[in-house]
Amino acid sequence: MSTQKFNIAVVGATGAVGHEMLSILEERNFPINELRLLASERSAGKKLSFKGKEIEVQVLNENSFEGIEIALFSAGGSISKKFVPAAIKAGAVSVDNTSAFRMDPNTPLVVPEVNPDAIKDHNGCIANPNCSTIQMVVALKPLHDAGKIKRIVVSTYQSVSGAGVKAIQEMYAEAQAIIENRVYQRQIFPHQIAFNILPQIPQENAFMKNGYSEEELKMINETKKIMGDDSIRVTATTVRVPVERAHSEAVNVETEKKITADQARELLSKAPGVQVQDDLDKGEFPLASNATGQDPVFVGRIREDLSLENGLEMWVVADNLRKGAALNAIQIGEYLVAHPELLKKQVSSS
Amino acid sequence: MSTQKFNIAVVGATGAVGHEMLSILEERNFPINELRLLASERSAGKKLSFKGKEIEVQVLNENSFEGIEIALFSAGGSISKKFVPAAIKAGAVSVDNTSAFRMDPNTPLVVPEVNPDAIKDHNGCIANPNCSTIQMVVALKPLHDAGKIKRIVVSTYQSVSGAGVKAIQEMYAEAQAIIENRVYQRQIFPHQIAFNILPQIPQENAFMKNGYSEEELKMINETKKIMGDDSIRVTATTVRVPVERAHSEAVNVETEKKITADQARELLSKAPGVQVQDDLDKGEFPLASNATGQDPVFVGRIREDLSLENGLEMWVVADNLRKGAALNAIQIGEYLVAHPELLKKQVSSS
Repeated sequence: MSTQKFNIAVVGATGAVGHEMLSILEERNFPINELRLLASERSAGKKLSFKGKEIEVQVLNENSFEGIEIALFSAGGSISKKFVPAAIKAGAVSVDNTSAFRMDPNTPLVVPEVNPDAIKDHNGCIANPNCSTIQMVVALKPLHDAGKIKRIVVSTYQSVSGAGVKAIQEMYAEAQAIIENRVYQRQIFPHQIAFNILPQIPQENAFMKNGYSEEELKMINETKKIMGDDSIRVTATTVRVPVERAHSEAVNVETEKKITADQARELLSKAPGVQVQDDLDKGEFPLASNATGQDPVFVGRIREDLSLENGLEMWVVADNLRKGAALNAIQIGEYLVAHPELLKKQVSSS
Repeated sequence: MSTQKFNIAVVGATGAVGHEMLSILEERNFPINELRLLASERSAGKKLSFKGKEIEVQVLNENSFEGIEIALFSAGGSISKKFVPAAIKAGAVSVDNTSAFRMDPNTPLVVPEVNPDAIKDHNGCIANPNCSTIQMVVALKPLHDAGKIKRIVVSTYQSVSGAGVKAIQEMYAEAQAIIENRVYQRQIFPHQIAFNILPQIPQENAFMKNGYSEEELKMINETKKIMGDDSIRVTATTVRVPVERAHSEAVNVETEKKITADQARELLSKAPGVQVQDDLDKGEFPLASNATGQDPVFVGRIREDLSLENGLEMWVVADNLRKGAALNAIQIGEYLVAHPELLKKQVSSS
């Protein structure tokens, strides 16, 4: 490995995903020369700790990216739309965790375990998929390779951290109020989230004319793009549940070629990024509470679908802030530093 | 209507469903002559209030059913197996809320909105289906009649009250402990239930060799029996969520004949026992928190499946203690008192 170090910017450093990015960059000993933390004026001046040093958060503006080689964006779609072009202009490659460029045909949408080579086709920006899509495709890729997936029916159980730090606080505050029989004024969610189930993501009323939510369409469209196969048919119901962290998913898959439950367990146990937790005799299956803070996509409850000749059911759980966001983005960054020509390409073409 | 009144026994009167039965019998002014409350020795002597009077709970034994015309059982499968024969012997018709006789070919399994006529074939016992099955088939029957259902893929979000009063207490106690950063010793659930998601119902480790849970097989087998159509293919993932009351379900249906979302809404809005809540512009869809204490099966998020020519997605919510248990049993009781020859039949054949 080269000993080259890189100048990295984190946009949205003070958010839930930004926080996770810093801890993963540190944990994985990412080869950093300069680490530049960027956020809105509201957060500027705050100091965040990285490898025992305090780094002051700077105000994000058009000139923030001078000298930066990789910019990790996680500050909302409108910020990415505005500042990714500035990062590209400055010669940085952006890894964007928002939905801003995901379906842009000129932007690769990448899960390193699934389609790493797509990174090579970047034009200055690589999009990080939606959290619920990432964990699902990591679990489905080995099955697609072995039996070609025809159709996916997925129902999600998504934690509130996907809606940000304030959503976590609101869930606990509302839970406490309900336990103490007090009235609670919600700020984030349109309906009770503590001790309730909300079939609406995002929480702003964002349903399409066809009745699907934004999040559901993300899962449908992003899955096809990442898998590089438009023939895969996908339907989704995405649901917010009162869990702090880690998304769970009930995934039903129909394949062209029969895959037995044993074969699926075998394929998944060898798959990168996957950890099979599937010993029912021992009461072992993936749980959000166990996946929190962990890197793998956990897969269990693997069984042959009783309603279909070539069908599988499984339960897929991963930490939405790690593999679903920060970790996946940093893995893309690791691919870039392992292929530094992909960084230079950007500079030379601008 | 006849002014005849009936002698009714409630077995398991002190449990969560028993409590609900008493309040529904009162609310619907069920034509009761004598109300006999039965429970285990532990609960005997307790007094429960009914229509302003206190009724003492008696110890359940072989002689408890003398003079009883309808016995409502909700005290666990082993109690039903032991005492339903005693009730039959005494000339009573039993409505059994446990799984003891559901798949017995000599016992009708009934949801009054779906297959009321099956009650006529009873041999002294009518089984009340599993809670998650009841709400699903109420929502699916009108679609099956209109377009013939080929396949169902369902994922459930089931409240803890399905596991009894102690499970509710445990969920709140554990939630409080987590908020206060205290350790909590669970008695009921094998894993954290507060702020977590548990893909295991029942909570005792009850998985089959094929990887499905007991609850999942109930949904699969009971749906076919109630709909009277073995050709319907069903798969299910049943999941416990930290909600006190009301089960939510993401139901994906494939039909032989195309049913549009508008047609489905139209069919469901006319269907008995169903209330359509499906105005996304107003942010209206079924919620567990709103369904609690309500009678209807609420259906919303109705949309045409993007992955299938003849597919529908929908979100189905109902109070598991009411329509999912007590109310359905009492509706069966109401059918019996409206057809008193079905009660006499029992007496004359014994």
